[in-house]
Amino acid sequence: MPKTITITGAAGQIGYQLAFRIASGQLLGDKTKVNLKLLEINPALEALKGVAMELEDCAFKSLGEVTITDDASIAFGGSDFAFLVGAKPRGPGMERSDLLIENAQIFSIQGKAINHNANKNIKVLVVGNPANTNALIASANAPDINPRSFSAMMRLDHNRAIAQLAKKTSFHSSLIKKVAIWGNHSTTQYPDINNALINSTKALDLLGQDWVRNNFSPAVQKRGAEIIQARGLSSAASAASAAIDHMNDWEMGSDEGDWVSMAIPSDGSYGISEGIIFSYPVTCKDGDYSIVQELNLDGFSQESIKASELELLQEREAIKHLL
Amino acid sequence: MPKTITITGAAGQIGYQLAFRIASGQLLGDKTKVNLKLLEINPALEALKGVAMELEDCAFKSLGEVTITDDASIAFGGSDFAFLVGAKPRGPGMERSDLLIENAQIFSIQGKAINHNANKNIKVLVVGNPANTNALIASANAPDINPRSFSAMMRLDHNRAIAQLAKKTSFHSSLIKKVAIWGNHSTTQYPDINNALINSTKALDLLGQDWVRNNFSPAVQKRGAEIIQARGLSSAASAASAAIDHMNDWEMGSDEGDWVSMAIPSDGSYGISEGIIFSYPVTCKDGDYSIVQELNLDGFSQESIKASELELLQEREAIKHLL
Repeated sequence: MPKTITITGAAGQIGYQLAFRIASGQLLGDKTKVNLKLLEINPALEALKGVAMELEDCAFKSLGEVTITDDASIAFGGSDFAFLVGAKPRGPGMERSDLLIENAQIFSIQGKAINHNANKNIKVLVVGNPANTNALIASANAPDINPRSFSAMMRLDHNRAIAQLAKKTSFHSSLIKKVAIWGNHSTTQYPDINNALINSTKALDLLGQDWVRNNFSPAVQKRGAEIIQARGLSSAASAASAAIDHMNDWEMGSDEGDWVSMAIPSDGSYGISEGIIFSYPVTCKDGDYSIVQELNLDGFSQESIKASELELLQEREAIKHLL
Repeated sequence: MPKTITITGAAGQIGYQLAFRIASGQLLGDKTKVNLKLLEINPALEALKGVAMELEDCAFKSLGEVTITDDASIAFGGSDFAFLVGAKPRGPGMERSDLLIENAQIFSIQGKAINHNANKNIKVLVVGNPANTNALIASANAPDINPRSFSAMMRLDHNRAIAQLAKKTSFHSSLIKKVAIWGNHSTTQYPDINNALINSTKALDLLGQDWVRNNFSPAVQKRGAEIIQARGLSSAASAASAAIDHMNDWEMGSDEGDWVSMAIPSDGSYGISEGIIFSYPVTCKDGDYSIVQELNLDGFSQESIKASELELLQEREAIKHLL
């Protein structure tokens, strides 16, 4: 059975990476045919047409139909997997609260379109910022879809944390397990390596607590800015890659003996307010995720996690009229 | 054994697609570790640093070391596969002969660097235009490397031809076989479907000769311009995808019952002057390619192929002092 994949903001930098990697079979394997539905705002439709032409020109074995549209009800029609990448960026002089509200409008429209048009078992990943609260709004506007179907992307932060540990210890990233990112996809996120293993050794036995707090956490939190500084453009290929990792693990299962970080509706685990889209360490199996339970959180971890929760509660307050 | 992959012009649009698809395992499969050596001109090194950071941040299982440099002797050190993407684009007021000569200098330096530093069994794919003649220059400057190791990319044209047939007939691209592109990667190229099969039926039995000459050939030849028109940027993702297809088939073998188009040193087959880098239909097996022999070429095909040969002979004449 072919699967329908929706990508919003598909003519943007992240979308341009994501569409080709998915079409080449990297999301569901090259035996599963995928139909792509690409959404853009009207002024970007011509550029999106170019993207669709290039997709045809790849002659990918696993790519079925490509649809381009500026109509969300078409873009989410029968959608099995949706990558909500498009969002309004923060312009000059714009307050964070303005940003929240402008995006809230976009994501409430998309939530409604998902509710009315998508496959009821859709998996939704919000990449566009503020991702967690955008996901909350989309979910609130899709009352017929299980809220567990809505997630926001923390996997780029998760992968960045692994990359920092790999660089510091010279072990390959594949030998680094059980890193976790808690909270909001913002500078309040809490990268946690208290349970991390590096080549089967506890990370904290290899790395001093000082390095972790003073170098590691800021490096993860500020990595995006560092890349903008170097490239002159924000992270696109690595964001697309993380989005594929997130959705691929969610659908196909995460690796044994490891976990991943996903922002998902809080069920109250670890004392976090229910309903906000909060990042936890999770394991994935059979197309579903479970929060890793009973981790010991020291005082610093608890405080850090609470601070990120507080930010998400404030974000929810700012857009509560749209919920 | 890890493999070393060189990409030149790696901070450009095509390089930015190519590096991530290769690092994710799409060139050699995700069981083979790849080390990437990324070359850029000095002013682009800072942007390239950003690309390298993003590659780290993907935490790809099959990615080993990433090296960034503006020194060709480092970039080609131990290289097993080289994608020569970087080239000087044609600027305003520049004649085609100027373009040939400016690029000839770049590719003669890179040929020497390959000769002195690369694995002797390297496979080289030139993507940067004028690709065929650039490949000839690189090869001429690498006397210790088998000339058969140097190729230029026609696969994008090949894939575009398949895409046009798929669109016209509504058969999936995977059902279209034995398309060929002959000659130069330029508007003189000859897209040939005299032997093509569409869902096992001869293409010419499904499509009129008129459509082929008046619509199909121009559509393939002008596809690049059409995409620039829509995107405002030249083809990048589809070019990167074709580059992977080319190198992947060359190394791993092409599909049974089909062939692909590669520009390779002419051995005189079909009466083409020996030594120029000319695109033929080829099959690949055991890491090598063979030109498909004994195809019947009608008068129109012969004339078209000769015209493209003539252009390549003129290009060679323009840069003969560098051979």
